[in-house]
Amino acid sequence: MKFVPVSKYFLLLIVLVAPQFSSAQSKLDKPNIIVFLVDDMGWQDTSVPFWTQVTAFNKRYRTPNMERLAREGMKFTNAYAMPVCTPSRVSLLTGANAARTHVTHWTSPDKDKNTDYEDPILKPVDWNINGFSPVADIAHTFYGTPLPAILQKNGYYTVHSGKAHFGSTGTPGSDPKNVGFDVNIAGSSIGHPASYLGEKNYDNPVKGKPHRNAVPGLEAYHGTDVFLTDAITTEALKAIEKPVTEQKPFFLYLAHYAVHTPLNADKRFLDLYLKMGLDSSEAKYAALVEGMDKSLGDVLNFLDKNKIGDNTLILFMSDNGGLSTTPARGGQAWTHNLPLKAGKGSVYEGGIREPMLVRWPKVVKPASVADQYVIIEDFFPTILDIAGIKNHKLVQKVDGKSFLPILKNANVKDQSREILWHHPNRWIAAEGPNIHYASAFRKGDWKLIYDYRNAKLELYNLKADIGEQNDLAASKPEKVKELATLFSKKLKEMNAQWPVFKSSGEQVPLPDVVAAKL
Amino acid sequence: MKFVPVSKYFLLLIVLVAPQFSSAQSKLDKPNIIVFLVDDMGWQDTSVPFWTQVTAFNKRYRTPNMERLAREGMKFTNAYAMPVCTPSRVSLLTGANAARTHVTHWTSPDKDKNTDYEDPILKPVDWNINGFSPVADIAHTFYGTPLPAILQKNGYYTVHSGKAHFGSTGTPGSDPKNVGFDVNIAGSSIGHPASYLGEKNYDNPVKGKPHRNAVPGLEAYHGTDVFLTDAITTEALKAIEKPVTEQKPFFLYLAHYAVHTPLNADKRFLDLYLKMGLDSSEAKYAALVEGMDKSLGDVLNFLDKNKIGDNTLILFMSDNGGLSTTPARGGQAWTHNLPLKAGKGSVYEGGIREPMLVRWPKVVKPASVADQYVIIEDFFPTILDIAGIKNHKLVQKVDGKSFLPILKNANVKDQSREILWHHPNRWIAAEGPNIHYASAFRKGDWKLIYDYRNAKLELYNLKADIGEQNDLAASKPEKVKELATLFSKKLKEMNAQWPVFKSSGEQVPLPDVVAAKL
Repeated sequence: MKFVPVSKYFLLLIVLVAPQFSSAQSKLDKPNIIVFLVDDMGWQDTSVPFWTQVTAFNKRYRTPNMERLAREGMKFTNAYAMPVCTPSRVSLLTGANAARTHVTHWTSPDKDKNTDYEDPILKPVDWNINGFSPVADIAHTFYGTPLPAILQKNGYYTVHSGKAHFGSTGTPGSDPKNVGFDVNIAGSSIGHPASYLGEKNYDNPVKGKPHRNAVPGLEAYHGTDVFLTDAITTEALKAIEKPVTEQKPFFLYLAHYAVHTPLNADKRFLDLYLKMGLDSSEAKYAALVEGMDKSLGDVLNFLDKNKIGDNTLILFMSDNGGLSTTPARGGQAWTHNLPLKAGKGSVYEGGIREPMLVRWPKVVKPASVADQYVIIEDFFPTILDIAGIKNHKLVQKVDGKSFLPILKNANVKDQSREILWHHPNRWIAAEGPNIHYASAFRKGDWKLIYDYRNAKLELYNLKADIGEQNDLAASKPEKVKELATLFSKKLKEMNAQWPVFKSSGEQVPLPDVVAAKL
Repeated sequence: MKFVPVSKYFLLLIVLVAPQFSSAQSKLDKPNIIVFLVDDMGWQDTSVPFWTQVTAFNKRYRTPNMERLAREGMKFTNAYAMPVCTPSRVSLLTGANAARTHVTHWTSPDKDKNTDYEDPILKPVDWNINGFSPVADIAHTFYGTPLPAILQKNGYYTVHSGKAHFGSTGTPGSDPKNVGFDVNIAGSSIGHPASYLGEKNYDNPVKGKPHRNAVPGLEAYHGTDVFLTDAITTEALKAIEKPVTEQKPFFLYLAHYAVHTPLNADKRFLDLYLKMGLDSSEAKYAALVEGMDKSLGDVLNFLDKNKIGDNTLILFMSDNGGLSTTPARGGQAWTHNLPLKAGKGSVYEGGIREPMLVRWPKVVKPASVADQYVIIEDFFPTILDIAGIKNHKLVQKVDGKSFLPILKNANVKDQSREILWHHPNRWIAAEGPNIHYASAFRKGDWKLIYDYRNAKLELYNLKADIGEQNDLAASKPEKVKELATLFSKKLKEMNAQWPVFKSSGEQVPLPDVVAAKL
């Protein structure tokens, strides 16, 4: 045996010990979970193609970090959320569908304020205008057991950074700390920022009462040139240093204000899009998208640097379809989500289909593609499933279904699943394609849409007609009847709210009643 | 003789008396004077053609009230201002050219702050960074006797409404009341509004310290949907009800914040421009222009209603060329003032030529066109001339020349007049066509431009080449020498400030020195 100097043993010791330090966090029995939620991002607002074809939009937008996520994880081509913001967020928080939560529309930061526009035909329903509440008996709220609180109780360090918009000011749901987050960065009752600009203090005055939609809690960035997207990312990553160091699993809910209006110019990324010759608003929008993607890159780099990528699940999602009203968007209204029809506010695909990506190195096969349809309330049971949390107590009934089996095998299919969108509300003053008082139902490739004001049903086959151009209701009355029956049954089971005609005072008929007359 | 009932005499009496009541104000020996000043409006930002041809821009913009003014008054096709804002305003207030006032650049609302960008080649000059002062011995200001104070002393009721931007906060010139206005509406040291929106309180917080560029004094409109352009018009017209009732002549300086950035959407006018398919920013800009024109219509209607149009002179003017950097403007930079070259900031025609209209029914011939070149400092002697004010005391020397003879006869010409633009400053971080450290000189149809950083002269014949595309300096050295000599003489006479090269510490040579080497 050769002489071996002590130093060599010492090096060996380091080699043996070092991995233990660097992967200690990855030896936890629970994975870290990151929900990376974008606001108002459309299905085509990315260089990752979610359709069978590469579109002009895929060529326009630059999202290299989403591309990385798609390469290293699973792409969901049929992922859905609600047509507007708060309903999606409350469903994610509770696992319950909007038809059940009665949070069917976006909530005002102001308490007891109905954001429904006056409609000439229908009376507004008595929906939960104050949003979600983790406490019972708060007027006009849906009371439930929120996901972060369950994770927190089960050993997770929980961080909220960005947009909350769970409940109105003056109700418990307005503060992320009340729904189970250990840390809250910049979250409140507001649904969009007054400004993305550090130079404008995210619209907080130096002294005095902040603007209604000022972003709270980022004083350290006031007067700097740090774009909001960057500030909430930096702070989020700072916050999770603690559980990483302490070898505790974390749940990071990084919910960007981007890419919601106002379309403030992110000067880091704008030039490229102006040089492309894009419309000014579209260039600003594209820069907002790229800024959001840069944040995703920062998160991935953080995981790499801390060597915790293997044990961290990232769920990338948007909360509703891309905004397509003009203004704020440039060009022609309702063209921004093509090949999908319409946009935010609508129950057509443009308003509800989302870019969804999941990376989880030990489980999800790289570059895999799942075509099974999933919906925002599925996040709740899936995340609990992934965290291995069972026998937790819930006050609400969960409508979502865990997609963990899909993460394990992208080919898992369930064409018999029924999902629905319920929006008995008027979103804006102007009219648009099924953006007011409309609900929809999907089973397999079939989608039934219900326009309340005209008590009219539309039928589409999404496999053959992703653009919902050919309404088959007249030619396939039996299919309409079959779906309308299932749809109505589900609406009743969920105790969905239903509007009333102003003229007659009578309730709009349910889909099955209308279908029966075909 | 037939029997005539008393009532008929009574009617006759009314007819005889009524005109006396309705035109009492018009029997004043002095006319009312309205300066309607627009901010950053370019020469082509109107449906009134100021060039020999009707341009695409003339077809784009809708300014029916400017059309009315052109129909009922005189159009000046060669009217000039300075390339940026404060210098024009101070020249209007004092009659002195910027080369003399040393207010050669835009002033910050913050006292003692030089808005010059750092330039790699030249040191900044010691210009009057706090703007104009009606009081002597205020540091970094030009001390002069302001036009409104002279009018006020001579029996005019003087009203300021809109943007002042005469001097920095903390100096006397920052308050319009200190420069001779009886009433100040919304004027301060700021050069643009933080917001045009009543919904945003023009960016004043409800309590606490206002934003740096919040518009002051319009609390009555906070929380309403009244666009800033409208608010300052309504308040201006309310304010002149007093002199109209009291049969006193008035001077109204209605200086719009429009059409300066931010390009907030004026929803009253936006739709039309979006439907034209314009770029989003360009549509917003066009709506700002139309909102400004609507204000002009409101003024004309007020004069009609009060039957004082005949005795009221209206001078319509802009303070510099149209902004043509992108962003904030859409499309290609430096194309927004075509056929003129460049835009705001530049001494090329796009930065200095202005849409100017004058209506004065008793003097100015309807639909007349004056091609004589005039410049912003001419407003001072002209207005005093029109008001019949003589032997007033002034602390400053006046460079402007009264254009009252032109108002009386549009054919009055003076090709021997020498005018100049002096801008020894760096405006923005980016480069652009003669937007930094450049001066210019016009005599007859000839224009000489001096680029300090390259110590280079350019020569154009504006009659043959309005777009300044053919630099004749090389082919016509004698003309360059002739003009450079006159130009340099004038600069010296005015005690113009002159920059120094950073590398050598030597002053940039005067134009005549450069020309002598040709």
